Amino acid sequence: MDIRFFPGVKAKITTIAKSFKKLGQDDPRRLTHSFKVGLALTLVSLLYYARPLYNGFGVAGMWAVLTVVVVFEFTVGGTLSKCLNRGFATFLAGGLGIAADYFASLFGKKGEPIVLGILVFLLAAAATYTRFFPRMKARYDYGVMIFILTFSMVAVSGYRVDELVVLAHQRLSTIALGGATCMIISIFICPVWAGDDLHNEVASNLEKLATYLEGFGDVYFVSCKDEGSGVDSKDDNGNSKSLSQGYKSILNSKNNEESLENFARWEPGHGGFQFRHPWKHYLKIGAHARQCAYNIEVINICIDSDNQVSEYFKRKIEGPYSRMSAECGKALKALATSMKTMTHPSTAKLNVDNSKAAMKDLKFALEAASIENADLLAIVPAATVGLVLVEIAKCVEKISEAMHELSERAHFSKTVEPTVSPEKPQQLLHGGIVRPVSEDTDDAHNGNDDNVVITIHEISSDSPENEKSDEHRVPRPGQV
Amino acid sequence: MDIRFFPGVKAKITTIAKSFKKLGQDDPRRLTHSFKVGLALTLVSLLYYARPLYNGFGVAGMWAVLTVVVVFEFTVGGTLSKCLNRGFATFLAGGLGIAADYFASLFGKKGEPIVLGILVFLLAAAATYTRFFPRMKARYDYGVMIFILTFSMVAVSGYRVDELVVLAHQRLSTIALGGATCMIISIFICPVWAGDDLHNEVASNLEKLATYLEGFGDVYFVSCKDEGSGVDSKDDNGNSKSLSQGYKSILNSKNNEESLENFARWEPGHGGFQFRHPWKHYLKIGAHARQCAYNIEVINICIDSDNQVSEYFKRKIEGPYSRMSAECGKALKALATSMKTMTHPSTAKLNVDNSKAAMKDLKFALEAASIENADLLAIVPAATVGLVLVEIAKCVEKISEAMHELSERAHFSKTVEPTVSPEKPQQLLHGGIVRPVSEDTDDAHNGNDDNVVITIHEISSDSPENEKSDEHRVPRPGQV
Repeated sequence: MDIRFFPGVKAKITTIAKSFKKLGQDDPRRLTHSFKVGLALTLVSLLYYARPLYNGFGVAGMWAVLTVVVVFEFTVGGTLSKCLNRGFATFLAGGLGIAADYFASLFGKKGEPIVLGILVFLLAAAATYTRFFPRMKARYDYGVMIFILTFSMVAVSGYRVDELVVLAHQRLSTIALGGATCMIISIFICPVWAGDDLHNEVASNLEKLATYLEGFGDVYFVSCKDEGSGVDSKDDNGNSKSLSQGYKSILNSKNNEESLENFARWEPGHGGFQFRHPWKHYLKIGAHARQCAYNIEVINICIDSDNQVSEYFKRKIEGPYSRMSAECGKALKALATSMKTMTHPSTAKLNVDNSKAAMKDLKFALEAASIENADLLAIVPAATVGLVLVEIAKCVEKISEAMHELSERAHFSKTVEPTVSPEKPQQLLHGGIVRPVSEDTDDAHNGNDDNVVITIHEISSDSPENEKSDEHRVPRPGQV
Repeated sequence: MDIRFFPGVKAKITTIAKSFKKLGQDDPRRLTHSFKVGLALTLVSLLYYARPLYNGFGVAGMWAVLTVVVVFEFTVGGTLSKCLNRGFATFLAGGLGIAADYFASLFGKKGEPIVLGILVFLLAAAATYTRFFPRMKARYDYGVMIFILTFSMVAVSGYRVDELVVLAHQRLSTIALGGATCMIISIFICPVWAGDDLHNEVASNLEKLATYLEGFGDVYFVSCKDEGSGVDSKDDNGNSKSLSQGYKSILNSKNNEESLENFARWEPGHGGFQFRHPWKHYLKIGAHARQCAYNIEVINICIDSDNQVSEYFKRKIEGPYSRMSAECGKALKALATSMKTMTHPSTAKLNVDNSKAAMKDLKFALEAASIENADLLAIVPAATVGLVLVEIAKCVEKISEAMHELSERAHFSKTVEPTVSPEKPQQLLHGGIVRPVSEDTDDAHNGNDDNVVITIHEISSDSPENEKSDEHRVPRPGQV
């Protein structure tokens, strides 16, 4: 009534409407899912509402409604897992309940409630206890709950209704009806496969890491940019901002990946995935990707405390650092592409080998630069970044190995790679920096720096030669 | 029947029995919880079973059984949250359902099912959509589900049963009966408070970090141990193993802490906690603790790649490193203790200040050591560890600040600290290492190392003076 409150209310409603809209824009499948639930519920309700079915099912018809509400999950795997858990648990608990009822009836009118009470207590306690097993919790938690529920209902109601088998049959058929409606709608109307989601999420996580690593050189060495390392100049501010945020979501991806894997194993074959697709391997790759993201977190710590790094040192290490992170990025991008296209990750191997070579370059560069720099505090953050890059390269190698294992198990197709000719391996073996002549470090740190000759030999990271290796699917344009 | 299978079966049963036993030993409250669920279910079942109540509630009595099974959670907060969600949602949806039924009846016999179908569809879709809001999902997910369930049941069944208000009343009273049983048993028989769990978990996480940091010096400098830094020698193998594992659980603690916080806010006052205890602040402290654990992860990466660190350099940095990590560890332990005892964290401030002083020492030591070492690769891993220790010290400071905020908001008691006298602040200001005389680093790296005098002046980390600051609650024994 009070008109003064209207502007505030209006603003609030606008905010809520906007957040509703954003929710749908972020993932339009949410909207579809909501309509699917509405549809399933309306269908089952109307079945229950129609007279012939009502006569058939009686009050038990509401179990169909209940089943739909409780069982319909966002992904097909989630829905199937709940349906099967519910169906199987109801069947088992119904049988056990009838048996318990029969057993209790042997103790006469007086003993029956006591025996039933004890049985319900023991079974409920034991079943609840098993829910604490992490594996049970992940896969069968819902089933155990329905088991307890159905068992106590059947065991206790048995005394009254006396037509237990009819009741059990009713419940099972209505649950089957509700469950089948959910499964059919979930699978055939805009299905959301947990397996697809897992597959895409792991691939996109690899891509996020790749994006960070490929852009790393540009951002980290932004101050000595004018040297011209051959990389196209991008909008550094925006780039640096998005660069530092993209990988963050990977740090906490564990739970989501695990629950998707749990659902994916219930799904039938679909798209390129067969029923027993090795979903477990995605978790392995995901774990390595997370390790990689932790390392990137360290790099960001170093960048933040990076005010006093000497420009001279930075210039010395720029080449190998940029090359190494670019090679790791390319390898990850190739792995992500091969995951997305479900082809054998053979091209990524080249990049992994290149990143190994770049690792050696980086070590030599650090060694060489250290001879000229004695001010440790001014170089430690940058040196740490190098160390972490080496760790990231190791992670990338592990990811590559896990990908090979996955592609073997999942029978990814081994396509011919059109533009990379096998007789000309384009490895860059120590292409960047020549090792210092004097290997004796004791000698070097006695002060005779002049003996060491260091040749820096830039290889532009996007020269046409390197380009072939990871962008072989894109027809080469006239001018990149 | 086949006796040859018996040994295998027996072994399997033994394994399962052992894992059952271990589950209970890890947390005996799991066993209690199982018995509590059994008790609640038996009580409600027997009520349903007894004739007078049966006549009162009819078939609706089974809703009491259902409520108990679905609603009884491990923690009091979880149970309360589900009970209240269920009760409120049933009430609201029941009312809306009756209204929908009345509204649909206005459209005549033919229009009624169509209008009801549309209403069920719209409401179910809209409610399902709101479940995607992260905040809704965290707190009211169960309520929304029950809302959809009850609304469709009431709306659709209304046409048949015709005594909607009676039905709604029945359902509400049986749900209230089941819910009340759960709440009473959950609160009064061996209650498991989510708030307590959150409080203890955050405190124990701080302690785990403290244990790592306090033991860090011993483990990291194990090779130059014979120098005798005044620390008692411990069983290094076992220690180092457990040291590297303890903090790992913190890395993935986010989800658990968040769900505990969600439950804790539903709990009434208990123990030292009032109803509106600032649970949110525990999440803040938890986040800083996780950041700390990430940093420790980096230290472990450095230790693993640590083969080639020069012993000379290690000896030079041992003092400040050990002191700094010990001070951080002490500060964390003091913070954990003040959290556990719910007292104001005033003693921890001293340790935080000490760790700041140690931070400066560490920087000086690194600078000093760098003058003598030119072999960068042999010192970078160790120097990185130093850098990370500085980051950890910053984390500890943030944790301390967050703890102060928490203790203000939660009105932690400000006890008098018996043994620390305020006129004698026991800060160790640069107690470890004297800064090199020559500050000009350019000068120093021209080779005239002899000008630099470095005095290492060990302060044993468990000397009686320091002991007072963090163990003031323990009566001082004659000989530690």
